[in-house]
Amino acid sequence: MPLPPLRLKPREERRLRAGHLWVFSNEVDVARTPLTAFSPGDPVTIEDAQGHYLGTGYVNPHSLICARLVSRDRRHPWGESLIVHRLKVALALRERLIGTPYYRLVHGEGDALPGLVVDRYGDVLVVQVTTAGMERQLDGLLAALDKVVRPTAILLRNDTAVRELEGLERYVRPALGEPPEEIEIEEGGHRFRAPLGAGQKTGWFYDQRDNRDRLAPYVAGARVLDVFSYVGAWGVRAALGGANEVLCVDESQTALDFVARNAADNGVGDRVTTRRGDAFEVLRALREAEEHFDVVILDPPAFIKRRKDQRAGEDAYRRLNQLGMQLIGRDGFLVSCSCSYHLPRDILVAQMLQSARHIERDLQVLAHGQQSVDHPVHPAIQETAYLKVVFSRVHR
Amino acid sequence: MPLPPLRLKPREERRLRAGHLWVFSNEVDVARTPLTAFSPGDPVTIEDAQGHYLGTGYVNPHSLICARLVSRDRRHPWGESLIVHRLKVALALRERLIGTPYYRLVHGEGDALPGLVVDRYGDVLVVQVTTAGMERQLDGLLAALDKVVRPTAILLRNDTAVRELEGLERYVRPALGEPPEEIEIEEGGHRFRAPLGAGQKTGWFYDQRDNRDRLAPYVAGARVLDVFSYVGAWGVRAALGGANEVLCVDESQTALDFVARNAADNGVGDRVTTRRGDAFEVLRALREAEEHFDVVILDPPAFIKRRKDQRAGEDAYRRLNQLGMQLIGRDGFLVSCSCSYHLPRDILVAQMLQSARHIERDLQVLAHGQQSVDHPVHPAIQETAYLKVVFSRVHR
Repeated sequence: MPLPPLRLKPREERRLRAGHLWVFSNEVDVARTPLTAFSPGDPVTIEDAQGHYLGTGYVNPHSLICARLVSRDRRHPWGESLIVHRLKVALALRERLIGTPYYRLVHGEGDALPGLVVDRYGDVLVVQVTTAGMERQLDGLLAALDKVVRPTAILLRNDTAVRELEGLERYVRPALGEPPEEIEIEEGGHRFRAPLGAGQKTGWFYDQRDNRDRLAPYVAGARVLDVFSYVGAWGVRAALGGANEVLCVDESQTALDFVARNAADNGVGDRVTTRRGDAFEVLRALREAEEHFDVVILDPPAFIKRRKDQRAGEDAYRRLNQLGMQLIGRDGFLVSCSCSYHLPRDILVAQMLQSARHIERDLQVLAHGQQSVDHPVHPAIQETAYLKVVFSRVHR
Repeated sequence: MPLPPLRLKPREERRLRAGHLWVFSNEVDVARTPLTAFSPGDPVTIEDAQGHYLGTGYVNPHSLICARLVSRDRRHPWGESLIVHRLKVALALRERLIGTPYYRLVHGEGDALPGLVVDRYGDVLVVQVTTAGMERQLDGLLAALDKVVRPTAILLRNDTAVRELEGLERYVRPALGEPPEEIEIEEGGHRFRAPLGAGQKTGWFYDQRDNRDRLAPYVAGARVLDVFSYVGAWGVRAALGGANEVLCVDESQTALDFVARNAADNGVGDRVTTRRGDAFEVLRALREAEEHFDVVILDPPAFIKRRKDQRAGEDAYRRLNQLGMQLIGRDGFLVSCSCSYHLPRDILVAQMLQSARHIERDLQVLAHGQQSVDHPVHPAIQETAYLKVVFSRVHR
């Protein structure tokens, strides 16, 4: 039974043919296939203006991105068996490149599964659905995950704000078994714990794994400052990489309790200390106390979540980098991160250079990091690339 | 004795104050400080239009970049003792991040030593001077290298074409001891050999070290094709990383003889074979023979050396990536490199996407690599960043 058609206006198929997956509502030939005829999440066949097949996917008449192409293959239309296939393809990549079962298993469009994010913590899966089309397939998705991964527990963390753009309610609930309060993960050959408390955005930030893997040579014998430390992934790995002394700064006492546990569990509790407080205030206090560090790591939450935050967000990154740089001694390293899609890498580097010039330091850019390999980027969809890490040297 | 002034026109100091190091000839106030009064390589004090000190450096009236700022510090003007200081700063970075004495010790502007490149092969240094100002300081430079690094041999490889822009002759000669015909280097815990034949651009491409360090997970158990293999750095490291079978392709029999030796010396001679020929022709022949590989590595020489090569060069990258992609089996990896400064990373990715769409494959971008940490980028000088590596997955 063929899926109902969604027909595009003339020439609007070009972006899709070039590789993109999104259809915007102004690109649809609404005279022939009115969007109002569809309910959010309906499956469709996407056609060009001449009625030629482009692929299958799903629609949401209430969203600016009114349809997403999921499959170009006639033999494998959008549906549960396609999800099984895509999960297998995604799993094969992680098993090949990562080995241990701790990773992002599905990164939305980057894994050709728009509207879906799955993080794997061994036998526990945390699933986030962000589109009405994927929500419609929720039962099929859960069955597919069971078939391909055989998890003991699945937590649906469907509490992200982007769901509102799709007219979806926000909720968090177990979909299989009893997801634990706390998860254990492995990274760089070490084990860490993190909270999985329902209703709060927590877990482990796998997107920085590959960048943390590069940290050791920078920190051997060093005094390290880890700002926005969360549960200490950077800081504890710095200690494990040979740092003499690590200070982790975070606003959350829960996060800092995990830092202390992760440090102790890995035998570096004596070299990791924590300080609770607002990052900017703590950095200013450290500056006033004339503290210096050999390595400063800045891994803030997204300061620019939407376009309207652009100005204030850029300003926050600028202030943060300036403060961080001022705490570096005669010759040290600044590892500066941004997970804001809206902050271009060039701007981040320019801010760092400006800060360096301001305090008459020389800045060398040594390496650029991005999100880890289990967060693949779709080459036609810029939005699938968001994480920027700049490894730099600051010296006089 | 203060260095003679070079005065800029109003507002032309802004780029320098923001961090840049170059002065273009149209920015000089030639009424006050005529460029014709200088000889190529003369040291100067660079001043703004009001006569305020900006820094010291050197001049070349015959070059478009008519002066380069080397020091902003009044106490440490351009000269031999500044070179000693800068070499120490450069050495400290490599000793910290690399450990073994095999690296690029000086990367021009990226190490605040414009016009100078130094590669270190243990006790042997290969030096390239590309500006008249640095050439003028050659004796001081050699003394500084002796003082800071204590090499047993120095080869001056001053045969690069860019010297002509500075009106410098091209030559290759030993400046200390007897540089060997062949060098031995260490990378990733393994030892390799490469030719150091005078008069030919050879040696080891340290700029890809950090990228090769990431190769192992991609190649375990795989059949690998290394195109433009040179002495086999990628290919032999692929075999050492667990590849079952590696084919190295290069035009030079000398290079392929080194591949065979490097493979044998590292105990993987049985897994590495070579094929001599033009890369494009070999790729076409492999395609006709319906050969398939799990991993294809394309690391060509710069196809776009100058702006005028842009079109032909982009076309060559496009053809190369298309051919390489066609040799990948059902699910494999393409590691695509470009060392052309003039090829933006976005264009390379777009070409790869276009090739993938052309043969109806899906492309996932997994990681972006750049030149290794011993090739630091000057954040104000785009030209100091040139190497792009895209780790991607190609599948159906």
